Amino acid sequence: MASTFTTRRIIEFAETDMAGIVHFSNFFRYMEATEHEFFRSQGLVLHEDTSEGMIGWARVHAECDYRFPLKYLDEVEIQLFVEEKTGRSLSYRFRFWKDDQGPVLCAEGQLRVVCIVRPPNEQKIRARQIPEDIAARIEVASGKPWEL
Amino acid sequence: MASTFTTRRIIEFAETDMAGIVHFSNFFRYMEATEHEFFRSQGLVLHEDTSEGMIGWARVHAECDYRFPLKYLDEVEIQLFVEEKTGRSLSYRFRFWKDDQGPVLCAEGQLRVVCIVRPPNEQKIRARQIPEDIAARIEVASGKPWEL
Amino acid sequence: MASTFTTRRIIEFAETDMAGIVHFSNFFRYMEATEHEFFRSQGLVLHEDTSEGMIGWARVHAECDYRFPLKYLDEVEIQLFVEEKTGRSLSYRFRFWKDDQGPVLCAEGQLRVVCIVRPPNEQKIRARQIPEDIAARIEVASGKPWEL
Amino acid sequence: MASTFTTRRIIEFAETDMAGIVHFSNFFRYMEATEHEFFRSQGLVLHEDTSEGMIGWARVHAECDYRFPLKYLDEVEIQLFVEEKTGRSLSYRFRFWKDDQGPVLCAEGQLRVVCIVRPPNEQKIRARQIPEDIAARIEVASGKPWEL
Repeated sequence: MASTFTTRRIIEFAETDMAGIVHFSNFFRYMEATEHEFFRSQGLVLHEDTSEGMIGWARVHAECDYRFPLKYLDEVEIQLFVEEKTGRSLSYRFRFWKDDQGPVLCAEGQLRVVCIVRPPNEQKIRARQIPEDIAARIEVASGKPWEL
Repeated sequence: MASTFTTRRIIEFAETDMAGIVHFSNFFRYMEATEHEFFRSQGLVLHEDTSEGMIGWARVHAECDYRFPLKYLDEVEIQLFVEEKTGRSLSYRFRFWKDDQGPVLCAEGQLRVVCIVRPPNEQKIRARQIPEDIAARIEVASGKPWEL
Repeated sequence: MASTFTTRRIIEFAETDMAGIVHFSNFFRYMEATEHEFFRSQGLVLHEDTSEGMIGWARVHAECDYRFPLKYLDEVEIQLFVEEKTGRSLSYRFRFWKDDQGPVLCAEGQLRVVCIVRPPNEQKIRARQIPEDIAARIEVASGKPWEL
Repeated sequence: MASTFTTRRIIEFAETDMAGIVHFSNFFRYMEATEHEFFRSQGLVLHEDTSEGMIGWARVHAECDYRFPLKYLDEVEIQLFVEEKTGRSLSYRFRFWKDDQGPVLCAEGQLRVVCIVRPPNEQKIRARQIPEDIAARIEVASGKPWEL
């Protein structure tokens, strides 16, 4: 069972904007990439073609609070915490840290995702239960570690 | 004085992902582009080089609730509402609509931005009062029109 | 029959990088968006779900020469020229202009695309003839108008 | 002295498009990121604030030939070769490989970049000599290793 995950990435030039910092929309890409790495670290995949159809995870809510900018070549540490698990959804919290004469909290984010399936030859998706192998491996972090 | 703004855009191929829909991070780009169009519609600019330094607007909070996907070639209508104005910040609400046998609410979003200045030859930014020409032209929408 | 097309777009903040100009990779997005608008202007679609499978256009070559930067809020005019048409492929040339005390050529680009089909329930794509409705409406520009 | 460099990256979900593959424009981001990693591997930086002004590298030409698609979670190996060095410019070749029951060449690309400086308090950039520390560490690859 896993409920937290940490990864690191180096900010690329193309992720900056003319203000000289990472464009705020990219933090959502970083959160998603961290979620996917978290799944991979557990031997799980987020998008899977099954006999029932394509199973995936629709984003239903995303948010981010920005405290300190990330810049080109910054090495950012991203922490993921599982905040909530229902039969059909997962909620994550994220923290973005960089080192600037000590650790600096750059941003805090959230994602809520719902398990969905797109049956073969259909356009419509519908919510479904979290697959058993995933439900068996992911659990809510104890003690609200995302609270500082 | 202006407190609401509406624009339209057509979803481009590069804005979709392998799930066949607009990647959720792009809604934040659309919100920002709408904010910038709103400013332009009032003869205002968001980033200005002045004798005091580069004046801009730091994003401090962003969020979005996703209800219905946007797809390639969809024509989306984006509504902006000014929800709050303080001496140094603005808060916006956004609604994303498309027509699918009647109007469909695809997403609702929020941005909170703070006016900042980067003095010449400095790296640090600091918050400052909203410039007078901007404060004189933008006001809070009356009656909470962002509530459905 | 159509062989040229012109569109305009305003540079968005998120398309810039920390050098203060449009990131060079975005010119390829602009070329593709122009190609798609060109198709739409002819009542054609680039990606279509048919009984034969999903018909689309694979990019096989892309290039761009950069002469003058595009910046935030620049209004850029993009010209498309059909340079070559074979049974299965189209080649385009693009020119990017902005007005800076007279027209300035900012970039010149090329795309070569091949018509492909992904049959139902298959992962592999294969090249196919250009659909008749498309072949009937798009032709090579006469007189090499892309040469200055 | 260095003339070649190899890196690896895993394709992220947000880099795909509705065709289910990496959007072609992202190969240019990958090339640039590889160039930057190459510089870092030599203890060099591409964008530097000096007393002379901001020194950087303007992209003057970019191209790519696409042979085989990259997909979500693919691990791609990117090879960089220095093809040409003049007093003011560098030209690179790139090859993108993935493993699919043996190595598959997915794409081949090129970038040509010119060293530029933006003097303090000026908007205009101008070409300049490659800084000595960079010229001393980067050389042309011998024997055209980018030819297969």
